[in-house]
Amino acid sequence: MGSQSLNVDIEDLISVANALADAAAPETLRHFRSNSLSISNKDQAGFDPVTVADRAAEKAIRSLLADLRPNDGILGEEFGSVESRSGFTWIIDPIDGTRGYMSGTPTWGTLIALRDQNGPVLGLIDQPYIGERFIGAGGRAWMAGPHGEAELQTRQDTTLEAAVLFTTFPEIGTEPERRAFEAVSSNVRLTRFGMDCYAYALLAMGQVDLVIEAGLNAYDIQAPLALIEAAGGVVTDWSGQPLTGGGAVIAAGNRHIHGQALEIVRESLKQS
Amino acid sequence: MGSQSLNVDIEDLISVANALADAAAPETLRHFRSNSLSISNKDQAGFDPVTVADRAAEKAIRSLLADLRPNDGILGEEFGSVESRSGFTWIIDPIDGTRGYMSGTPTWGTLIALRDQNGPVLGLIDQPYIGERFIGAGGRAWMAGPHGEAELQTRQDTTLEAAVLFTTFPEIGTEPERRAFEAVSSNVRLTRFGMDCYAYALLAMGQVDLVIEAGLNAYDIQAPLALIEAAGGVVTDWSGQPLTGGGAVIAAGNRHIHGQALEIVRESLKQS
Repeated sequence: MGSQSLNVDIEDLISVANALADAAAPETLRHFRSNSLSISNKDQAGFDPVTVADRAAEKAIRSLLADLRPNDGILGEEFGSVESRSGFTWIIDPIDGTRGYMSGTPTWGTLIALRDQNGPVLGLIDQPYIGERFIGAGGRAWMAGPHGEAELQTRQDTTLEAAVLFTTFPEIGTEPERRAFEAVSSNVRLTRFGMDCYAYALLAMGQVDLVIEAGLNAYDIQAPLALIEAAGGVVTDWSGQPLTGGGAVIAAGNRHIHGQALEIVRESLKQS
Repeated sequence: MGSQSLNVDIEDLISVANALADAAAPETLRHFRSNSLSISNKDQAGFDPVTVADRAAEKAIRSLLADLRPNDGILGEEFGSVESRSGFTWIIDPIDGTRGYMSGTPTWGTLIALRDQNGPVLGLIDQPYIGERFIGAGGRAWMAGPHGEAELQTRQDTTLEAAVLFTTFPEIGTEPERRAFEAVSSNVRLTRFGMDCYAYALLAMGQVDLVIEAGLNAYDIQAPLALIEAAGGVVTDWSGQPLTGGGAVIAAGNRHIHGQALEIVRESLKQS
């Protein structure tokens, strides 16, 4: 964690991240499960309430950042980039999992990450419908939810054959990517689908052991990455390299299971 | 709804159903996301916390029914059947979606249904982690959740090509069943996975349009059936017949889309 090098109190940055998530929540919840989300409305009027909610939430976050951290950079999905003058950059995705959001499932999340020159400083996943927030920062990870607060730690003692694996879509990505995923899937105890970014929160909680996805954007993975690393897990791309942008991701609860999954993925891709 | 024929106040029965769900919730929540749920623990000690929670919750429900409705029948997963002396039978599944429960996803539910000689009287789906409860009874459907209460109505204006389709596992069931599902899936706007019984709540809410599953047990579908019919939807088996036991299910927001999906399923099964 590189925040100390910039001489900033991590607690202050956590407060800012919480304030940003608090500012986004009313905007995302306003349209969640609203009648205006009807797909036929969207088709008929050219009105896309997911985009409306996404943009309103990102505006709320950017407006607060302009007040609280005017020298920090911003990388966001809807309104482009602001260059950093402080060394810190916020990476925000107000509604990650828009298809889940459109379907009414509480599996989407607001993603807020902070990086400095050395890498991730903080990652936050907020699920405001359930009222759950997951934060990794300063070498620890924790959550607050409807049944209280808890420290988070990834599961350290599971091997591949006992593992629970999550991804969002069975198609995964390209055809070789799908085959590589299925090669891992055929070696685990249970494969489940459809959780969007909530799967990464479950990994940080130690409820699941692997999340494998492809085709992610840079702003999709930075918050999960910081959260999972702070909870004791390992996140790389499909060649085992650190994630710089988006792309294909293997996130695991421990180094052993990460290595096992990575080897199967590499072997499968080699044969494609 | 046949409850009037037995001269019982539907409001009383709704109160009983709520009390049963309230009694089950502490038992299911006690083990949800607990460390004892670790899969390795289960394998090592032969201790299955899902079964422990399931049985404790069913015991709590049965104990309360013995007090409140001693003459009603009971059909439950864990402790067999009690014959009805009143004409009413409660059908209970304390944890529907055990694989979701084991993975920490708040997509499992406590299912409570009541039938009389004429069919479903009441259906309740409870998701106690989120704090959401969905009830269909007496010709109406409603929910209570963390953001308030709402009447439920299925989406009435969607056609197949604009539909959102849910199921839990991409494998569906047998190979012909999987092919029939994929034939429907290839005609809809969006297919999503992994929601367990929560998918039926989303259908009742008008958030999704179709839930298609196979291999269900009788106690899996009675509560969703009563909820969805009360919310304006249609539920049958894959040949279009009323559901008496479990098996393969097509649940739809309206009669039109139900007919469209049913036709594709029948055509696909004919070719298998």
